[in-house]
Amino acid sequence: MKLLAFAKRASMTFSCCLRPVLSTTIRSSSSSSSSSDSVKWEGGVSMVQGASRGIGLEFVKQLLQNSEKGHVIATCRKPNEALGLLSLKNMFAERLSILPLDATNESTIEASAKSIRDRYGFLNLLVNASGILSIPDVLQPETTLLKVEKSSLLLTYEVNAVGPILVIKQHMWPLLKAGGGTGTDRDVAVVANISARVGSIGDNRLGGWHSYRSSKAALNQLTKTVSVEFARRKDPVICILLHPGTVDTDLSKPFQRNVPEGKLFTKEYSVQKLLGIIDHAKIQDNGKFFAWDGQEIPW
Amino acid sequence: MKLLAFAKRASMTFSCCLRPVLSTTIRSSSSSSSSSDSVKWEGGVSMVQGASRGIGLEFVKQLLQNSEKGHVIATCRKPNEALGLLSLKNMFAERLSILPLDATNESTIEASAKSIRDRYGFLNLLVNASGILSIPDVLQPETTLLKVEKSSLLLTYEVNAVGPILVIKQHMWPLLKAGGGTGTDRDVAVVANISARVGSIGDNRLGGWHSYRSSKAALNQLTKTVSVEFARRKDPVICILLHPGTVDTDLSKPFQRNVPEGKLFTKEYSVQKLLGIIDHAKIQDNGKFFAWDGQEIPW
Ligand SMILES: NC(=O)c1ccc[n+]([C@@H]2O[C@H](COP(=O)([O-])OP(=O)(O)OC[C@H]3O[C@@H](n4cnc5c(N)ncnc54)[C@H](OP(=O)(O)O)[C@@H]3O)[C@@H](O)[C@H]2O)c1
Ligand SMILES: NC(=O)c1ccc[n+]([C@@H]2O[C@H](COP(=O)([O-])OP(=O)(O)OC[C@H]3O[C@@H](n4cnc5c(N)ncnc54)[C@H](OP(=O)(O)O)[C@@H]3O)[C@@H](O)[C@H]2O)c1
Repeated sequence: MKLLAFAKRASMTFSCCLRPVLSTTIRSSSSSSSSSDSVKWEGGVSMVQGASRGIGLEFVKQLLQNSEKGHVIATCRKPNEALGLLSLKNMFAERLSILPLDATNESTIEASAKSIRDRYGFLNLLVNASGILSIPDVLQPETTLLKVEKSSLLLTYEVNAVGPILVIKQHMWPLLKAGGGTGTDRDVAVVANISARVGSIGDNRLGGWHSYRSSKAALNQLTKTVSVEFARRKDPVICILLHPGTVDTDLSKPFQRNVPEGKLFTKEYSVQKLLGIIDHAKIQDNGKFFAWDGQEIPW
Repeated sequence: MKLLAFAKRASMTFSCCLRPVLSTTIRSSSSSSSSSDSVKWEGGVSMVQGASRGIGLEFVKQLLQNSEKGHVIATCRKPNEALGLLSLKNMFAERLSILPLDATNESTIEASAKSIRDRYGFLNLLVNASGILSIPDVLQPETTLLKVEKSSLLLTYEVNAVGPILVIKQHMWPLLKAGGGTGTDRDVAVVANISARVGSIGDNRLGGWHSYRSSKAALNQLTKTVSVEFARRKDPVICILLHPGTVDTDLSKPFQRNVPEGKLFTKEYSVQKLLGIIDHAKIQDNGKFFAWDGQEIPW
């Protein structure tokens, strides 16, 4: 594989510019799931981060509905207030675990990882769905450079780019390595980071939304960087980026008047398409950026 | 121009996804330089931000040496300690102004803009050369995801991506609009943001350096976003991104052992190539990302 060939050269000399040297220690893939556990968790274990509302909540719902056995861990900032999740809990009982996790607070990520390790021992899928575009009285997408504020750039970067990467890091990565594709129809575990087409630099022809655009471009770069290391270590894990289309959620609500008739997707439709991409994901998709319809998006 | 055609559609409906609506107010280009000023500043006025050392300092030197009349404003965090700049000041006297500016501190940016407005009234070139990759005991480029820290991601983003954009914002932008290409061989004023090839997502095959890579990808996206607004407003200003090659400076020093013989450029060579690109920059280069040799780099 081209990627692996490149990766092997990483500790050698470089062709023409300053480039990083990745540490070459390959950690052995520590599977903490015994064979009796494997039976227990038949159907796979998925985690959806940012699951209180919108696209994240819909992922939880479809993951539970689409399989008879699969288990789902839904994380969100305030489980007690996540009414959509609580009503799914009533229907799916022990197949759904709800854990508190704020993507900007690493100790909550660690605590979730510990819970998942103790109960399941592995993960087959991690969907990072959390994200912000606007927050009343705090954050407004910029209509001009004149309105760009450092505080908005930093907050959006912290939630949209830093958060998902910290969730993967040492916290969920070992669980994903332990899980790989076991219990699913795939060969690999999947990390799906929800990005956005407006994060594409090549596709940026309208300008504006500086904070959101740059946070998603940074998320794309961080995800690509992580994908290279996954390939390098030959982990049974891949990392992909997904654009859900324009979806009718709280996030898009203030901006929906500019969306042409028929182009505003329901959560149900978008997540069905995105789960199709995830379910068919292969090792060679590692590090790619797909729209809801499976088309690759330029960086 | 394709870019302008797109921009004109910005306040209309959008074809298929959630996209920003730029505010459409076109501010009139307020030139505060009278015709006697124009004579006074014949040869152009350039600003180099991050000019205490390395590539920034070399830009200042060559800009002064290459012209008999051009003026240069060099900004840095600690003018009193910037020995290279102080020695250029001895040689070039009033053709060089040195001002204090920390790219993470907006009030220092404002103060510099005020000084420049009062003395020159306009700018023809802004080079944002400031940047960090490693800082002893504070910041180490990551060799693996396991070493990624939120503090490193945020610090690098703040300096490398947020800083240059805040410098442009309302502070230098009106000065650049007032200057355009006047006094130079160009039709336009130029903002040159120094990026790096490792910021390219498409070119990322070795992984590592998460903080630096994502900060430069974000800088690329922010610069592209700004370029769209420049075109939209028909300002006589363009914004480009430059990769200097691997250059022998403090920044590259800890990593030079991996650079093949002959591939480590001197500051003199790199800046000569970059100034060639800037001097020949045209309106259609707006928003592009060039390597030292003039080749475009993929996003
Ligand atoms: N909707 C679209 O048209 C669209 C288009 C392109 C991309 N996207 C992307 O799709 C993803 C989901 O968006 P959505 O439309 O479903 O938005 P949404 O309805 O506003 O939901 C956003 C979710 O992110 C969570 N969140 C925010 N900050 C968080 C934090 N610090 N830690 C943990 N969770 C946090 C929210 O939790 P709380 O309930 O606690 O606030 C909520 O569950 C985002 O990444 C967004 O950028 C959406
Ligand atoms: N050298 C290379 O091989 C290479 C390759 C690709 C891209 N680049 C890029 O080229 C640019 C220049 O790098 P260089 O090699 O010349 O590095 P350098 O020798 O380390 O110089 C970095 C400069 O940035 C300034 N700076 C750092 N933080 C700042 C802040 N908050 N506000 C204002 N100035 C600040 C430093 O000022 P102080 O003296 O106050 O610290 C110094 O003048 C950077 O953007 C770098 O990423 C370099």
